Amino acid sequence: MINTETMVKNLKDLLAEKKFEEIREVFRESRVVDMADPIGEMDVKDILIIFSLVDKETSAQLFTYMDDDKREELIEKFTGNQLRELLEEVYTDDIVDIMGDLPANLTKKILQSATPETRKEINLLLSFPEDSAGSIMSCDFFELIQYDTVGEVILKLKQQGNTAETINTCYVIDDERRLVGSVQLKNLLFEKKNVRIKDIMERDPVSVLTSDDQEKVAEVIRKYDIAIVPVVNDEKRLIGIITIDDVMDVMEEEITEDIHKMNAVAPIYDSYADASVMTIVKSRLPWLLVLMITNMFSEMIIAHYEAAVMAIPILVGFMPVIMDTAGNGGGQSSTVIIRSIATGDVKTKDIWKVLRKEFTVGVICSAVLFAITFTRLYFFASEEATIVGALSVALSVSGAMCIALILGKTVGGLLPILVNALHFDPASVAAPIITTLSDTTSLFIYFEIASLFFKLN
Amino acid sequence: MINTETMVKNLKDLLAEKKFEEIREVFRESRVVDMADPIGEMDVKDILIIFSLVDKETSAQLFTYMDDDKREELIEKFTGNQLRELLEEVYTDDIVDIMGDLPANLTKKILQSATPETRKEINLLLSFPEDSAGSIMSCDFFELIQYDTVGEVILKLKQQGNTAETINTCYVIDDERRLVGSVQLKNLLFEKKNVRIKDIMERDPVSVLTSDDQEKVAEVIRKYDIAIVPVVNDEKRLIGIITIDDVMDVMEEEITEDIHKMNAVAPIYDSYADASVMTIVKSRLPWLLVLMITNMFSEMIIAHYEAAVMAIPILVGFMPVIMDTAGNGGGQSSTVIIRSIATGDVKTKDIWKVLRKEFTVGVICSAVLFAITFTRLYFFASEEATIVGALSVALSVSGAMCIALILGKTVGGLLPILVNALHFDPASVAAPIITTLSDTTSLFIYFEIASLFFKLN
Repeated sequence: MINTETMVKNLKDLLAEKKFEEIREVFRESRVVDMADPIGEMDVKDILIIFSLVDKETSAQLFTYMDDDKREELIEKFTGNQLRELLEEVYTDDIVDIMGDLPANLTKKILQSATPETRKEINLLLSFPEDSAGSIMSCDFFELIQYDTVGEVILKLKQQGNTAETINTCYVIDDERRLVGSVQLKNLLFEKKNVRIKDIMERDPVSVLTSDDQEKVAEVIRKYDIAIVPVVNDEKRLIGIITIDDVMDVMEEEITEDIHKMNAVAPIYDSYADASVMTIVKSRLPWLLVLMITNMFSEMIIAHYEAAVMAIPILVGFMPVIMDTAGNGGGQSSTVIIRSIATGDVKTKDIWKVLRKEFTVGVICSAVLFAITFTRLYFFASEEATIVGALSVALSVSGAMCIALILGKTVGGLLPILVNALHFDPASVAAPIITTLSDTTSLFIYFEIASLFFKLN
Repeated sequence: MINTETMVKNLKDLLAEKKFEEIREVFRESRVVDMADPIGEMDVKDILIIFSLVDKETSAQLFTYMDDDKREELIEKFTGNQLRELLEEVYTDDIVDIMGDLPANLTKKILQSATPETRKEINLLLSFPEDSAGSIMSCDFFELIQYDTVGEVILKLKQQGNTAETINTCYVIDDERRLVGSVQLKNLLFEKKNVRIKDIMERDPVSVLTSDDQEKVAEVIRKYDIAIVPVVNDEKRLIGIITIDDVMDVMEEEITEDIHKMNAVAPIYDSYADASVMTIVKSRLPWLLVLMITNMFSEMIIAHYEAAVMAIPILVGFMPVIMDTAGNGGGQSSTVIIRSIATGDVKTKDIWKVLRKEFTVGVICSAVLFAITFTRLYFFASEEATIVGALSVALSVSGAMCIALILGKTVGGLLPILVNALHFDPASVAAPIITTLSDTTSLFIYFEIASLFFKLN
């Protein structure tokens, strides 16, 4: 690993002393990925000099690793020619990805600088809906004709294969360009030269549609344990390929979205570091408002029992522990079940199994919490509690806590499954919703039990 | 996609009528992965018959896809010979993975049934610490000798290459079996037969140590965008390879762990569906206890202000909304920052940037919530509020809510960074901790402000 600060200083010194050959040497001896961080820290002026020193492929890679702001500045500074040369080394799907974050004048500059071939591919990718397989696929693939022989294919691969993103798996098309099979590169190596592709190909490979959601693509790649998936259109014509590394990025984004949703943050930005304050506010304020409004039910419940509260003031002190225990317990259950649904560990048909499990877990946890709380409040009762009746206080608090916890766990476990069965996103009924629900419920249970013990109302 | 229930019924009918050829036909026409679910639903007795009908490779694949319980039953029922034949078709790293979930008598049965070669590999993998690169690597790889020519290598590959998990990337060793380079299969195809491997290999490939944590492996694969990573020991000798699909499983497990930790569930089991009630209780009860105990601080604060509570009973009703707003707001911040640290989007050096951002977001969200709450409580004041002073009530509640929210957001954003800087897991200071912290703090703020307005104490 290279220390970023040291490397930045080192490069700046070399630039100041115009030791260009030594800069080239540094790049020859390092991996490009390791140089991405230091280069990202430098001024655009210096980056332009460095780009002119290293080879085009290295510049292009450094360019794709950079953060959005730096890249924007660079594109602004590039001449049309510089930009064209650079873009030739970047895969089309990455160009489209980069364009997504650029202002309109710079996307135009990119389209103008691209070769006609690249421009056509860019426009194709841009024509697909956001987050669809079509929008993330790569057009740089190598297709095999089913009647070619292994020898012919190897010859063609030697001539053109290097421009493709990968040829470890190649896809086979028929006369109408429809996807009919796949061939592993190693099989080409192992077969006789005069064998026809159609006789060695694996028929009917797994594929996705251009219109499929990228989440579906990730699911297919994971389910079938494949590193590449071909993308076809409605007529089954081969349009592109998606490699596993692109899908890993997608998976990471989806998981961030899920985690955010589960904690009442709307998924509207990719990077916290890059997001503006107002974007972050927009992702959080709506849920805070919803939760604030649902909290009015708690207010109403407390108002309804105000007489009880006034008669036995010690009851107020235990409100937080009862609300929090039910909320935390329910949140644990909903979190676990939401994640289990996402990984396929729990399905709708498991609803009774989950109900039974959550209920039992709730009862056992409750029993332990009851024992501790009851002991604390009855055997070590405060003076105030003794006056109003230590047994009644201890039973009200521990009893309400246990019933609310069992209820919280059961509802927290069931709600995500029900919401999922209705084809909504289970992540939307996570901990914060459960907390607010259980606040209201647990206060109601608490005051009802207390009313019984203290003969209130 | 195959409908599981229909397929199970179909297979059972065919078995009952002993139409074995038709069962073979079903398997020839389907993908093995798609058959995994239906087979998993059937009785062990039926599965054994099906295994005897389909080819060994298919049986082995179905076997690896099965859930733990079903697999355990099968291993019990297998004769030693059946088990040996099956294991020959399963990659060693998968065997070790399966063994991890089996009772001791069955692991013993597997070791006894394995060929001496496989047994040696299993013991090697088992000797590495859990969750290390060594424990998840595959020993089924193909190594190249640096002085071999391309022609020699292709010949060897044709003879032995098919037993390797992948040969798309091959690794090159020197005379002391030390890793010195890597070669892409496609480059073998493109080069002349008499060229030596050492002249075309990429030198010094990225590798991981057998003792590296599996999380490190996932990080390396993602950072360098590679599909395979070689595993070396302390002497740099090549010991195994890890492919991206194994790492995807690791990533999924790590993410589940993180999500669970962030919601106060200890990460002690892999699958909710398979975990026993007591295991689930063990993963949840400790946190519930911790949170219950920290809640005693809230009790103490309320007890301390009991006089105030008694004097102005309407104050009690607003406790939940103030606690929840601060808790939810802080939980949003900690969630986003914890996830950003995990994806590398936020680093320790960004602490001031995060502080500024969270503070600003907190101020803006507060302003909106203040406006709404103040309007509601002042302009639409209840009779009770008007008696004690609507302005004082409105200002106490909205003021406390805002200060608590800003504090919650700032602390929620900073704590994970600080904890991470101290080399603890940031996920451990997530929403539930923030909720409990902010309960206490927000109640304190609330009662202090109320005391000011109502001249209590």
